[in-house]
Amino acid sequence: MASLRAAARLRPIATRLSQSSVQPQRFYASAAAAVKSSPSTGGEQPFFPDEPAGPVIKTAIPGPESKKAVAELDKVFDTRSLNMLADYQKSFGNYIADPDGNVLLDVYAQIASIPVGYSNPTLHKAALSEQMASALINRPALGNFPSNDWASILKTGILKVAPKGLDQVFTAMAGSDANETAYKAAFMWRRQHERGGAHVEFSEEDIVSSMLNQAPGAPQLSILSFKTAFHGRLFGSLSTTRSKPIHKLDIPAFDWPQATFPLLKYPLEENTEENKRVEAEALADVERLIETHHLPPCAVVVEPIQSEGGDNHASPAFFQGLRTLTKKHNVLFIVDEVQTGVGATGKFWAHEHWNLDSPPDMVTFSKKAQTAGYYFGNPELRPNKPYRQFNTWMGDPARAILFRAIIEEIERLDLVSHTARVGDYLYNGIAELAKKYPGEFNNLRGKGQGTFIAFDSPRRDEFLKKAKSVGVNIGGSGANAVRLRPMLIFQKHHTDILLEAMEKIVKS
Amino acid sequence: MASLRAAARLRPIATRLSQSSVQPQRFYASAAAAVKSSPSTGGEQPFFPDEPAGPVIKTAIPGPESKKAVAELDKVFDTRSLNMLADYQKSFGNYIADPDGNVLLDVYAQIASIPVGYSNPTLHKAALSEQMASALINRPALGNFPSNDWASILKTGILKVAPKGLDQVFTAMAGSDANETAYKAAFMWRRQHERGGAHVEFSEEDIVSSMLNQAPGAPQLSILSFKTAFHGRLFGSLSTTRSKPIHKLDIPAFDWPQATFPLLKYPLEENTEENKRVEAEALADVERLIETHHLPPCAVVVEPIQSEGGDNHASPAFFQGLRTLTKKHNVLFIVDEVQTGVGATGKFWAHEHWNLDSPPDMVTFSKKAQTAGYYFGNPELRPNKPYRQFNTWMGDPARAILFRAIIEEIERLDLVSHTARVGDYLYNGIAELAKKYPGEFNNLRGKGQGTFIAFDSPRRDEFLKKAKSVGVNIGGSGANAVRLRPMLIFQKHHTDILLEAMEKIVKS
Repeated sequence: MASLRAAARLRPIATRLSQSSVQPQRFYASAAAAVKSSPSTGGEQPFFPDEPAGPVIKTAIPGPESKKAVAELDKVFDTRSLNMLADYQKSFGNYIADPDGNVLLDVYAQIASIPVGYSNPTLHKAALSEQMASALINRPALGNFPSNDWASILKTGILKVAPKGLDQVFTAMAGSDANETAYKAAFMWRRQHERGGAHVEFSEEDIVSSMLNQAPGAPQLSILSFKTAFHGRLFGSLSTTRSKPIHKLDIPAFDWPQATFPLLKYPLEENTEENKRVEAEALADVERLIETHHLPPCAVVVEPIQSEGGDNHASPAFFQGLRTLTKKHNVLFIVDEVQTGVGATGKFWAHEHWNLDSPPDMVTFSKKAQTAGYYFGNPELRPNKPYRQFNTWMGDPARAILFRAIIEEIERLDLVSHTARVGDYLYNGIAELAKKYPGEFNNLRGKGQGTFIAFDSPRRDEFLKKAKSVGVNIGGSGANAVRLRPMLIFQKHHTDILLEAMEKIVKS
Repeated sequence: MASLRAAARLRPIATRLSQSSVQPQRFYASAAAAVKSSPSTGGEQPFFPDEPAGPVIKTAIPGPESKKAVAELDKVFDTRSLNMLADYQKSFGNYIADPDGNVLLDVYAQIASIPVGYSNPTLHKAALSEQMASALINRPALGNFPSNDWASILKTGILKVAPKGLDQVFTAMAGSDANETAYKAAFMWRRQHERGGAHVEFSEEDIVSSMLNQAPGAPQLSILSFKTAFHGRLFGSLSTTRSKPIHKLDIPAFDWPQATFPLLKYPLEENTEENKRVEAEALADVERLIETHHLPPCAVVVEPIQSEGGDNHASPAFFQGLRTLTKKHNVLFIVDEVQTGVGATGKFWAHEHWNLDSPPDMVTFSKKAQTAGYYFGNPELRPNKPYRQFNTWMGDPARAILFRAIIEEIERLDLVSHTARVGDYLYNGIAELAKKYPGEFNNLRGKGQGTFIAFDSPRRDEFLKKAKSVGVNIGGSGANAVRLRPMLIFQKHHTDILLEAMEKIVKS
């Protein structure tokens, strides 16, 4: 039944577009044709034949319907960060629709959080299952009353894709609390070591001072993060976030250390020595802070690619160095894969690119997983007593079931290696544009990192704005970066549309 | 279609019980009969005629099936805080089922977070709707790309039940981040005042120091909370939580102030003067801390009834005093209704019991709402620039749709006033038990607060354990309290079962 319904649901966009009385303005005639005639996609089969053939722009964005709706929404919900009002029931695959009938190719994908396309039929079926309904309406306090199918949901979902060497998970709700619970695990681990092991009881002084928010019970320890890092916006995670002042202003923060992140020079092949030096200096800075900071770090947290901070990359050697350093100093190594995880870099987890000798101690995830948490392997990272790492919901089985369906879809379409391939195609296409339009596509980065690609634009905000008018939804990061975050179902024919659009933007 | 399916789904429990080849042990013959013959419920109509007639205990808990499943789960997920494995697809109404065929009357309700019963048909229908499916699989970054139905989902749901005077909402995921985002709003509001208004730009010093986690950009300000309070377990919320050492040990905390919470003596009517004095002292303590703490509080946060901390109540006069004090000192008043909200106290929001002259500045919510956030009214609580209060998901439309269905169900069955009535019946029943068994039901509290009732037990943990063996799932709070948190669909005939069970426990 659900699948019939799903099938019925998938038709509206195509039908609506072709029956529309106003002929929609189609920008990409060749690409539009490509969906139906595979020769012009180089033989590529579209994953979703019912996907719109290309962007459709009917009005300026926001159009009149959107403007009305936004004004209404703003009465009760702050809309000043609103980018575009969407009509998700009409959005499909790589395309996001709005209430004015505009349909954009979406390579921002809800800040990199849509994995397998809007209104994906496999997910739609999972959403309408009885297991999902029960998970939604019978939401458990997972730490106290997990369901009898929770182990199976974990094993066939979240844990099926666990990073190598990490076979345990603590589930959470979003990136911020995934990171913060990982930090909590790190602090508890460190203090347990300082006490002499899991069997050593808390001292009376620990107990009393913890209730007063004072050391030693509330310890004078820290998490070390990097300049321009982003790890979330609650109080602990924000203390490790160093992206932009607007994220941090007026919010009290812990006095935790920040290390230099290597700022690589591009093109990489022309700056090998210089970049090596910059990375060595950054590692030295980490070691210096571990050794000397007045709040000793019990963990180092790092993004495989700094995302909000402007798409800053470092080499596998740098991350190998971090792993070595943290081991040397008995400090935990937390990899924040909230934005990089789940396939977009051409590996399921971006840190697989590093070929580490031993895995990170914890890997945090969210966004494309649609659920969140941290993976770990070392049994010492389970706190020594129950209720130390605990909260009412501890995640959400409904979202874990959805992640399982996402994983199925990724496997069915082999989307990780697909993304590695299409990423190369996209990277090369932008490299061509960069040659053709000098100064417009600077510091192109993300080679060999799937579609996790970015470049600096001399007029970034204008670039993003114009993108909408030519049918593409693109996001930025940091001060100047245009960050591409297509979904995993982004194909060559979508790439052609995107490249054509970007050329239009810089030509205009 | 969904409703047909729902109807089909609702039968299994009753059928299974009556057809079971092993005659299940029924503890409550009279109550079981009550569901079918309304005379013995005092003419009360059951809300869900298909609900189990009473608890069924087939095995010790955990039974053999549960033990096997828990051992399996523990390999990948910490189960040391596990209370009972559940089979939610077989749980219905007030009854939670386990994999061994045991069915318990549940008056703990997932730590007070199930509002209208397991497998509720109205929620089941909402869960299987196309709007829900789209919300689940097309999860937006709400601050950037809200759906065109988001305003309507808010207005017909979350905002339909907004506390009087508070017509805005910032949505979140759970209680902890609801509180932390409210705290962030408070800090931004305070610094904006200190700067001279929303139009005044951040100074260069603010900007630079914020990125270093230093004052003035990361200000030396605080949130004032109360001893034995619970407001969540992430870094900011945990700094205001003062419930138990096990919640706080080894986690760094902000040096924020805690005020005395009035510890009332029971019975209230015999301790009027003493309790008045205790409340006056607590208010004086708040004022002293506001005036003298080295990190000036920009907000006071308080639970209407301290829940995790042991079900500690205070009088409306105390909360009126807090409102007056906070106004006097230009400090915000945040009411944490995460556990008390959504009907259980016989009002939709517990702070309605206080008859305040002016509303709290913010009211946070989660749990029974199945979504989360903070309500506010003052436009100054919208930060002066976009992206200051922001994160990727900013809540979850799927859960907001569910809350709307919960509200519909509450209205359909008039559950708030129902809970006020059944709460009185429950309270009086326990008062009778307290007389009959001196020393067993101490400091009974929650009179006139719906079913939000607790008492101290001399052998609390044993009491809770025994409850399962007589067919009831009950929770504790603080060191000695038995806390009752039935769902809003808890009726007189359930009350009779609960009272009979509690008598059995203390008699055994």
